[in-house]
Amino acid sequence: MPARQSDASSKTAKAMSVADYIIDRLAAEGIEHCFGVAGDYVFPICNAVDSSPKVKWIGCANELNAAYAADGYARIRGAAMLVTTYGVGELSAINGVMGAKAERSLIFHIVGMPSYQNQRVHKIAHHTLGDGVFGNFVALSADAACCHAVINPENCVVEMERLIAEAHRNNQPAYIAVPSDYALSPVVSADVKPIVPRSNETALKKAMAAIAERINKAKSVVAIPAATVSRLGLQKQAQKAIEALGCPFVTTLMEKCSIDEGHPQFAGMYAGAVSEPNTRQIVEGADVVLDLGGVNLNDITTAAYSDHLDLSRFITVGLDDVRIGDEVIANVRLADVLSELAKFKRSSAPYRGKPQGLAPVNGDPSDKMTMAALYPRYAAFLRAGDTVVLETGSSSLGMTPTILPDGVRVEAQVLWGSIGWATPAALGIALADPSRRTILITGEGSHQLTANDIGAMGRFGANVIVFVLNNSGYLVERALEENPNWTYNDLAPWNYAELPKALGCTDWFTARVTTLGELDEAMKSARASKSGAYIEIMAGKMDMPPALAFAHGQLQAMYGATP
Amino acid sequence: MPARQSDASSKTAKAMSVADYIIDRLAAEGIEHCFGVAGDYVFPICNAVDSSPKVKWIGCANELNAAYAADGYARIRGAAMLVTTYGVGELSAINGVMGAKAERSLIFHIVGMPSYQNQRVHKIAHHTLGDGVFGNFVALSADAACCHAVINPENCVVEMERLIAEAHRNNQPAYIAVPSDYALSPVVSADVKPIVPRSNETALKKAMAAIAERINKAKSVVAIPAATVSRLGLQKQAQKAIEALGCPFVTTLMEKCSIDEGHPQFAGMYAGAVSEPNTRQIVEGADVVLDLGGVNLNDITTAAYSDHLDLSRFITVGLDDVRIGDEVIANVRLADVLSELAKFKRSSAPYRGKPQGLAPVNGDPSDKMTMAALYPRYAAFLRAGDTVVLETGSSSLGMTPTILPDGVRVEAQVLWGSIGWATPAALGIALADPSRRTILITGEGSHQLTANDIGAMGRFGANVIVFVLNNSGYLVERALEENPNWTYNDLAPWNYAELPKALGCTDWFTARVTTLGELDEAMKSARASKSGAYIEIMAGKMDMPPALAFAHGQLQAMYGATP
Repeated sequence: MPARQSDASSKTAKAMSVADYIIDRLAAEGIEHCFGVAGDYVFPICNAVDSSPKVKWIGCANELNAAYAADGYARIRGAAMLVTTYGVGELSAINGVMGAKAERSLIFHIVGMPSYQNQRVHKIAHHTLGDGVFGNFVALSADAACCHAVINPENCVVEMERLIAEAHRNNQPAYIAVPSDYALSPVVSADVKPIVPRSNETALKKAMAAIAERINKAKSVVAIPAATVSRLGLQKQAQKAIEALGCPFVTTLMEKCSIDEGHPQFAGMYAGAVSEPNTRQIVEGADVVLDLGGVNLNDITTAAYSDHLDLSRFITVGLDDVRIGDEVIANVRLADVLSELAKFKRSSAPYRGKPQGLAPVNGDPSDKMTMAALYPRYAAFLRAGDTVVLETGSSSLGMTPTILPDGVRVEAQVLWGSIGWATPAALGIALADPSRRTILITGEGSHQLTANDIGAMGRFGANVIVFVLNNSGYLVERALEENPNWTYNDLAPWNYAELPKALGCTDWFTARVTTLGELDEAMKSARASKSGAYIEIMAGKMDMPPALAFAHGQLQAMYGATP
Repeated sequence: MPARQSDASSKTAKAMSVADYIIDRLAAEGIEHCFGVAGDYVFPICNAVDSSPKVKWIGCANELNAAYAADGYARIRGAAMLVTTYGVGELSAINGVMGAKAERSLIFHIVGMPSYQNQRVHKIAHHTLGDGVFGNFVALSADAACCHAVINPENCVVEMERLIAEAHRNNQPAYIAVPSDYALSPVVSADVKPIVPRSNETALKKAMAAIAERINKAKSVVAIPAATVSRLGLQKQAQKAIEALGCPFVTTLMEKCSIDEGHPQFAGMYAGAVSEPNTRQIVEGADVVLDLGGVNLNDITTAAYSDHLDLSRFITVGLDDVRIGDEVIANVRLADVLSELAKFKRSSAPYRGKPQGLAPVNGDPSDKMTMAALYPRYAAFLRAGDTVVLETGSSSLGMTPTILPDGVRVEAQVLWGSIGWATPAALGIALADPSRRTILITGEGSHQLTANDIGAMGRFGANVIVFVLNNSGYLVERALEENPNWTYNDLAPWNYAELPKALGCTDWFTARVTTLGELDEAMKSARASKSGAYIEIMAGKMDMPPALAFAHGQLQAMYGATP
């Protein structure tokens, strides 16, 4: 996302404070919300956010939740801001930021450090190991980012441009540590303009020639628009490229619905041995697999390494390079390759898949809940303009094979797979684009990790519709073991439907449903609710969706000799 | 704590699995509970816990909570066990483990890694950055420990003894990473006995001679039993040493009540300029400050560096050394020094402080809540056999200057000061010693971070009495700033008293009180409750205890030039 004009760049002559400069410069990246938890070392940064007319403070229940929310926000808006305090705060957030690094989501993580004054004289201070040492946590947090800096008034302007450019180049987090006294100091101006990552023209031409040569020679081509396409907001560009090429495209679990599943060139979800036979043949039999954005072939997306893919047939268009076999052409941006591909003149008619359509809704209203009935009901419930946030576990394994209506957006954290992610991510996603309705689909085990930010949804008017599947424990774990009854898969027996009221969401619609008819009614009320809605779905302890049942049989292949 | 006989050491000939060996060996350290969150890479470890007749699995809502609970447990039992999964789990826990490192609490943190098989061939796997690299998170988690190892069947027995010894030597966390296939392999036996850290006899004699020389020459001596005394379970030994010496002793915020405040030699709480004048004179005027365990003189314990202490007058008895001025005598254990000090023959009558007694309970039953009335009521409510867990913030700043009855134990995380710690820590503390009643005193802002483990309290029968002070935001932060009304100090408006029921604690006593009389009644009911109790106390937004009001005036000194 190109930088907008910021007060920061125009006002450095007036000597804004370092804190004000940082917040204003990041606001120019299109960020209007800041997720975080306050703390004394970070007060100057918090004050800059609270004083800014451009950025709103979104206080979360804790820092990990704030990081997840920022990740969700960044997936929609291209970038997000996360503010935490030194040591205790940043380390609480580190798993969320690391997940953003793994899944290519751009979080600017700003941390307030003890003052340079106190660092210089090695004061023994709270939020430290009590040793007068201040560098240890910077090293840890920096590991969860693709770039980092400890800011002072003189390096601030240059470092911010470097960090913003590098973070966009990789679409990964940047870590920005600011000593509390420096944060209040006037920023020293510097003559530096925003650095926008662009392709090298020669490299781009070389890459396009190589791609065209491979594609023109191929008898069959299949495209996979990777999750990074959505992270960079390039879904339409990817679609145009695929339409110009006329080839079929598939998605893995990581990029479901990044292009509508009703698109005539859609050839299904690819997941190794659990793919439909036709989809599998299209992918594994293709002369060229055009990987747009760098698809991640991990144990989840390949259904326990059950794929038969020949990587020598891949053309991988990364964020910043193109790889064909062992040849790497660097300094080529994904967006530019997509634009060039959209000019492709194909010689034959485009691929046309058979329209798959939604699965029919099944079961009688008086029937008890089953997974066979639940997932088609979700599909029937969803509509264009909805953004669905899927929690890792049986929820994502149940939903990803389910064909969804056009115009539905799906977000999930498939590779990093940190349970608990989806609830706060839904908060961030809802605030990032209130014109869409955000739907959270989670199991209750994962929900317990981060449910305390249901309160923030209510406080900040994020009218999320929450579905919590209550099947008495971690179903995905029961399914992945020989003995499903280990006590560590049991949970504290929450009364989930009472939670929103306890957390201050007093005007939410809430329901606890045990039959299909109750679910149907609750879905109608949830859709009608102007505020949020929360539906607890009671289900069988071992009732699992088909993909999970398949995984159950693949334990050996999935983890090597043993789990 | 010396190792008890374990099945592990006697049964290695039978080739237990690595996972069973690790759990059994740690059980021999007196650990009967394992806090954690399951995950597939750590299944073999979880299974070993669930199969063990010696250790009970305590599933927490999330990993940070589990780490805090383990920290609390370790403070009572000497050591604790924490189990998390690779990457997502261990990183979620890292702040809690780092806090245990800072505060000298011994957590054995066991993490299940992807199988050696898959690591060896660089498989792309979930819970990684998708890069086939498996070492990055080990380096991060190891930083939160004082020692670590990646376990295999051959190094397991030796490494476990090394880790246990080193963790006890420092009373800090040990990090134990176990690839999932190795966890199931038979352990290879090794001829190694438990290594128990002991003093070097010569060094101990030298240290005692140096200490005696300094003390005998001194006109005045004051002792400070540091927080480490409690962490190592040496409270009685420290008390005997102090009684033999006959000198006055003081405590800082970090070691409140480690020796009864009714002890005749107790001379008050020392906190720099906010100490009672007599206490301050005793400490700052002493010829020798006998620091038993290594007191941490940070901004909190010195009330914003307002102390006037001459460190050249300190005798610091560390966990493993004695320091007098610049002379360090190493290989001397705190326990041994305390035993030797207990043999001291004093030449004069012991110090006798004036008994301070509890502050009188004030206010009428119909009065609205005030901090002036609340803290004396807590003191009157508490009794011998209670363990009070204080949350960082106004709760700890209000409670620490309040004299408490003899036999009350206090735990707080003063140096690391990670808000949210106290709620799960209370879970761990309650399970560590059910013969005592655990009382949690927290503000609602801190409580929001980790309140989801109130559910685990109910599930595992931890009958904690929870007091939640609801004063509409982070009071400690409002107090530490010129503008108390920044929006980042506001919170989602939870209905706290409804929370236990929503989290499954259906048989708890719950109340929401606004007057002193309501609090008195609720306290009686809470004390009578056989299960847990939860009291939400409604208080004024800016009504703060005196120590916090003092800190408000000390911002300049506390953070250098600026906060």
